[in-house]
Amino acid sequence: MEVEVSQSRIAKALNNVSKVAASTRAGLPILSNVLLRASENILSLTATNLEIAVVEYVNAKSISNGTLTVPAKLLADFVSNLPKDDVNLKANGDKLAIKCGTYKSTVNGILADDYPELPSINENEALGFKIGIEAFKDAVSQVIVAASSDTSRPALTGVYFNSYEGDIYIAATDGYRLADRKFVEGVDQQIKAIVPASTLRDVLGFINDSMDEVEILISDSLIRFRLGEIEVTSKLIDGSFPDYRKLIPETAECTLVLNKAELSRMTKMAALFAKQSGGSVVCEANQEKQNFAVCAVASELGENVSSIDTSVEKDAKVTLNSRYVLDALNAIADTEVKFSFSGKLAPIVLRNNKGNDYTHIIMPLKS
Amino acid sequence: MEVEVSQSRIAKALNNVSKVAASTRAGLPILSNVLLRASENILSLTATNLEIAVVEYVNAKSISNGTLTVPAKLLADFVSNLPKDDVNLKANGDKLAIKCGTYKSTVNGILADDYPELPSINENEALGFKIGIEAFKDAVSQVIVAASSDTSRPALTGVYFNSYEGDIYIAATDGYRLADRKFVEGVDQQIKAIVPASTLRDVLGFINDSMDEVEILISDSLIRFRLGEIEVTSKLIDGSFPDYRKLIPETAECTLVLNKAELSRMTKMAALFAKQSGGSVVCEANQEKQNFAVCAVASELGENVSSIDTSVEKDAKVTLNSRYVLDALNAIADTEVKFSFSGKLAPIVLRNNKGNDYTHIIMPLKS
Repeated sequence: MEVEVSQSRIAKALNNVSKVAASTRAGLPILSNVLLRASENILSLTATNLEIAVVEYVNAKSISNGTLTVPAKLLADFVSNLPKDDVNLKANGDKLAIKCGTYKSTVNGILADDYPELPSINENEALGFKIGIEAFKDAVSQVIVAASSDTSRPALTGVYFNSYEGDIYIAATDGYRLADRKFVEGVDQQIKAIVPASTLRDVLGFINDSMDEVEILISDSLIRFRLGEIEVTSKLIDGSFPDYRKLIPETAECTLVLNKAELSRMTKMAALFAKQSGGSVVCEANQEKQNFAVCAVASELGENVSSIDTSVEKDAKVTLNSRYVLDALNAIADTEVKFSFSGKLAPIVLRNNKGNDYTHIIMPLKS
Repeated sequence: MEVEVSQSRIAKALNNVSKVAASTRAGLPILSNVLLRASENILSLTATNLEIAVVEYVNAKSISNGTLTVPAKLLADFVSNLPKDDVNLKANGDKLAIKCGTYKSTVNGILADDYPELPSINENEALGFKIGIEAFKDAVSQVIVAASSDTSRPALTGVYFNSYEGDIYIAATDGYRLADRKFVEGVDQQIKAIVPASTLRDVLGFINDSMDEVEILISDSLIRFRLGEIEVTSKLIDGSFPDYRKLIPETAECTLVLNKAELSRMTKMAALFAKQSGGSVVCEANQEKQNFAVCAVASELGENVSSIDTSVEKDAKVTLNSRYVLDALNAIADTEVKFSFSGKLAPIVLRNNKGNDYTHIIMPLKS
């Protein structure tokens, strides 16, 4: 294998794929390597941790075809420090010689024969659809925040891609909160797939300004994302996702429209005083005063209450984890938020004031 | 005590002083508090960890004079989240009531009677001088990098302020490298003071764009920095600093002038391959080839050599810790650096190509 490739292009690709290689905790040393494959003026760079595989394709001048694997992190760090010039990569047995101007290096690698086989999707049997890059980024970011990090319930560590009444939705819940977002409209396919949240975080990390859309392909056990010159293939999570639509309250006793920035500020301030109580704060709507207040629960540090005037139809009070409220507000795109109560024990519902594409519900704490 | 003060001004001051309060590891809870003192339309905010004390003065409308101490971090976080408006602070026994628009809080504090006495300098017996803020920042940053973090030799954890031939110099060494910088010219005073590097780091952190100069006052056991509305008083380190001027080689066998960015790049790339050898890299000047090369010492990862053409009068070779070389280059202001060798065992000397104000020496490693 021998190729010549522009420093900036290969540096970017190595930076992308090495994120996956470096995160491997498996005992197999070759998994921390990147697989280089030169073929007909394309250099492909592949990394995998067996759960997810990433391939990036880079235009290159291939002097001879071939393959080699080398430590991904070392190669990424090395190449990113090289001057902006052409880089020559040449395999010599299990060693890779790198030349760029007066910089010369030899990196010890491992022959590609030992590299694990990569998961591949059967395109004929899989369901596919496309989504604009900005829409993808927004929707996934809004939902992923509610995914669990507790691996004892694997299904909850994923984001549930599901079709409902002719559209595709994505949803996540950790049992304490739930986020649901309309993802792609008018897709006439039956989809039920739990995608690891970690895979989606990786895909978000690969997005750059030159990309227009994401092409998604889902089979029984795998999902593939194609964005620009990058292809990410990941295992799906085996398991069943809760029937979450039942959990979303259809009506509310009291719905307020609040300025998102103000509510966020009030919650942050109360949270400072709520450290000893695990972040729990009390949200209270007062019909007589026509205001909404957030206050910290009993604290050694002192007390805090802040309020904003707003139209209130009915008194309501609920105790919430301030971190969950801040996460939800962060995920809401609108500058005004609809905040719906239904008694002390019912979940509260947060939505954009305009549009019903996104629903975020939070279970109350006992108080 | 009751004062009214602008949110942005007090937020900035709390952010400054709470850095010192928060860093306290002593068992005394009051040391994590900020002392508020209202007097004649000035609110002073004080924090100390007994080694260093910081006072910032803020213009305020004082409704009644008085004092109180409250948790510095909590108050800083709280006030920084308030809207840009006037903040009312009112002491009520050991509680501080904070009001700002519809935000109300009560913070539990401790009466100021228990606050430790602050170190104060006798201005008549102390030596004083001034230095422009940029010159102060540059000089201290260039020297502090060589200070030790090993508290078993306290004198080396400081920066040595010393007078020499009518000028003031500052110097630091950790035994492996040494940095020396002319600090203030034409000061006719005999100064020998070891200032904790941590104090200087704090002072650097307080600098903002509105400041013009630093006023420095040194007594037998204390140093005071006055910059803008901030006053920092710190204990000096008791001990004797090495007679470091003897350690700076007066001549060199081979001096090269190298592009700083290139040398930095070469060293970084070699360092990637030198992880197993604790970062040691070999620097070699070759008279025949008229070039200078940096290479990584034997490594499991592979090999690396990079070179630049430069005028070489005599062959020279030395093994150095790459981190020290990068720190030194980072401290050098000029785009070109003078790099002087004197045999394998002699310290190498790095200087700006133009000007002799700054000297950085690095001890070689055995190879």
